[in-house]
Amino acid sequence: MRVLIAGANGKIGQHLVRLMAASPHTARAMVRKPEQAAALEQLGAAETVVGDLEQDCTHALKDCDAVVFTAGSGPHTGPEKTIDVDQDGAIRLIDSARAAGVERFLMVSSMRADRPENAPEKLHHYLRAKHKADEHLRASGLDFTLVRPGPLTNDPGTGKVELAARLDRTGSIPREDVAAVLLATLDADNSIHQSFDLLSGDYGIAESLSRL
Amino acid sequence: MRVLIAGANGKIGQHLVRLMAASPHTARAMVRKPEQAAALEQLGAAETVVGDLEQDCTHALKDCDAVVFTAGSGPHTGPEKTIDVDQDGAIRLIDSARAAGVERFLMVSSMRADRPENAPEKLHHYLRAKHKADEHLRASGLDFTLVRPGPLTNDPGTGKVELAARLDRTGSIPREDVAAVLLATLDADNSIHQSFDLLSGDYGIAESLSRL
Repeated sequence: MRVLIAGANGKIGQHLVRLMAASPHTARAMVRKPEQAAALEQLGAAETVVGDLEQDCTHALKDCDAVVFTAGSGPHTGPEKTIDVDQDGAIRLIDSARAAGVERFLMVSSMRADRPENAPEKLHHYLRAKHKADEHLRASGLDFTLVRPGPLTNDPGTGKVELAARLDRTGSIPREDVAAVLLATLDADNSIHQSFDLLSGDYGIAESLSRL
Repeated sequence: MRVLIAGANGKIGQHLVRLMAASPHTARAMVRKPEQAAALEQLGAAETVVGDLEQDCTHALKDCDAVVFTAGSGPHTGPEKTIDVDQDGAIRLIDSARAAGVERFLMVSSMRADRPENAPEKLHHYLRAKHKADEHLRASGLDFTLVRPGPLTNDPGTGKVELAARLDRTGSIPREDVAAVLLATLDADNSIHQSFDLLSGDYGIAESLSRL
């Protein structure tokens, strides 16, 4: 599959580009600024494309089979950027994917995006924005998967995870493992029209996905 | 006991003032602005005192037996206010309490203040600030208790909680129940030099505290 990675220059995105280079899939890394392209090619991106999630990105979707949305405005911007990128940027790309006939869409959401009442108030704005994008994807008719990792770390991946429609425990997960789960999810047809929480755990990734 | 409530005008603080009015204890509600005093007296505060946590509050501690710190800069201010109030305001009041001979100090902290690696990055700044204040209290020599509630709601209290040195599940807790736990903790001598996570659960408050 040719896969557009929105947020390729982010921390999960960079892991995904690198892992995808060793897979049968073709990564098309979308970057906001042209000068970000070379580093992603170095990491193993087969293709790069310039696109800004606050604008139309239809050109970036050409000939793609799938999209992975792992973009985010990050912890250091204000609440407006969360709406502009995490919410409205995602919704716009979902609509463009549907119009362009790209059927598969993997969304990196967040644990508790579907139950902010179990999250601290400081997260509610972010979780509401993510939830709106998630709900838009669910209703889009696309072959969606919502991947909802818990707190992210920069630790090396372990390949050991726990994923389920709902996890009711605390924990964390390395970004590298999130990227590995995204890559495996592309090949897991039983993940279509599914959503799951994701934390580090005791199970192999393929095994965990097969039980969805 | 005469108890200084720092953050009396906050949501937990207001519940605590009201509940304390029906207890053997005397609430001294600290407010930042004089015009906030009347509403707290209405709620049942036996005494009110004007004090700003960004300044010295020694005058507010006179003749008190205990302090409950439930103040916070809230979700709508910037990161600087979190340092000024949640962290440095707490540290200053701890030092003033020790100097004034007020021996008992209950701190409303936050679940995962002691393990931010299990919390989303958007919370790390807040949790680090709370943790610094918590550690200062631990080292103060005061008869401290650290109460670490999970995500707070405005739902009515149920009187049913779960508290333990560490809870590894998700959940939430009404602010009214947090206030009830604080009041009960004042009378629970076995809570001295203890810290605990707190969520809604299946147990009565007194029973839960007795098992600490």
